[in-house]
Amino acid sequence: MATAPIIDFWFDFGSTYSYPACMRAQGLASSNGVVIRYRPFLLGPIFKAQGWDTSPFNIYESKGRYMWRDLERLCADLSIPFKKPVPFPQNSLLAARVALAGEGEAWRDKFCCAVFHAQFGESRSIDDPTVIREILQDVGAPARSFLELAQSDPIKLQLRTQTEEAGRLGIFGAPSFLTEDGELFWGNDRLEAAISWAKRLAEQNAGGRIMS
Amino acid sequence: MATAPIIDFWFDFGSTYSYPACMRAQGLASSNGVVIRYRPFLLGPIFKAQGWDTSPFNIYESKGRYMWRDLERLCADLSIPFKKPVPFPQNSLLAARVALAGEGEAWRDKFCCAVFHAQFGESRSIDDPTVIREILQDVGAPARSFLELAQSDPIKLQLRTQTEEAGRLGIFGAPSFLTEDGELFWGNDRLEAAISWAKRLAEQNAGGRIMS
Repeated sequence: MATAPIIDFWFDFGSTYSYPACMRAQGLASSNGVVIRYRPFLLGPIFKAQGWDTSPFNIYESKGRYMWRDLERLCADLSIPFKKPVPFPQNSLLAARVALAGEGEAWRDKFCCAVFHAQFGESRSIDDPTVIREILQDVGAPARSFLELAQSDPIKLQLRTQTEEAGRLGIFGAPSFLTEDGELFWGNDRLEAAISWAKRLAEQNAGGRIMS
Repeated sequence: MATAPIIDFWFDFGSTYSYPACMRAQGLASSNGVVIRYRPFLLGPIFKAQGWDTSPFNIYESKGRYMWRDLERLCADLSIPFKKPVPFPQNSLLAARVALAGEGEAWRDKFCCAVFHAQFGESRSIDDPTVIREILQDVGAPARSFLELAQSDPIKLQLRTQTEEAGRLGIFGAPSFLTEDGELFWGNDRLEAAISWAKRLAEQNAGGRIMS
């Protein structure tokens, strides 16, 4: 049996366009027979290497003003709630560590989307451990043990390693989608293109196997 | 009779994603009963105000590498030729002035798309007056007189004014699409959204007229 094509979905929990991407990815992927692998990382170090100490949407005012309006329109089109988080960007460190700690758990991908929903749909502060605890409980996770695990040295190291990997892969923003042949697609707008690419790649591979 | 909704298509001739946008805009607009109004301007002064002295695709290496690959994929999907111009960005001043000089002429919009095609489809230098002259001749324009008009003071001033207007409208990149109610859509990816918006707006206005 052919294995399903995999797309790595790289995101930072503070990234605005990763919100609609997260809300769309699972449904689009499963209806296309594609597996989405969640890869949380931190944009901060990558932005810092580009000389930015905050989100470019804060640095470049017109671009930021546009982004909020565009995001609002996108959310309306998708019928998902939108409420601008204040302050922006939020510190996504804790959420990212919890997401890494929960890798392989049944609730994990649901947790990721719930964090985005809380932040951009309800304007809740995802850097607040109480909020993260509530989200964990909502998705049926043992909150206390995973909050503890999230603060352990192996998980801290894993997030640093994952962020370095993102940089090595040429990732410069989020969301980014990476297919198994290393093809990079940047932005919520490119989710469909990434899925098409992954499917075509799987078909080519299956064809190659038949031919050989 | 209802008048067709208008979308202002703001672009810089050196802008990479304005190439597919220009190749798509006219067809999509006319099949949707929308009029596209070409508004060439210069990104240079707008980038300068953001602290950039060249294209951000040159300043941010990973983003630049990605953009060229993304553009290549887009052009393949659209079955339009792609050949990276060297150097990048090209100086778009002359092409923009000619496009302004030709406003209202039958060949004008065709000239704009031909400039993009020459630059990003054939890697020709659009800052070379010989290339612009050839393009003018190809689209059936009286080349010599419009090259002359392009260098006149009123046209130079008009380009400065148009560029200032872009800044006032909150335009920070190209292509940008602006509907009659001032709604801004940035990027080739947003052309369809701009067209939908313009059509909905026209329907609302028509409905309002019927109601009143």
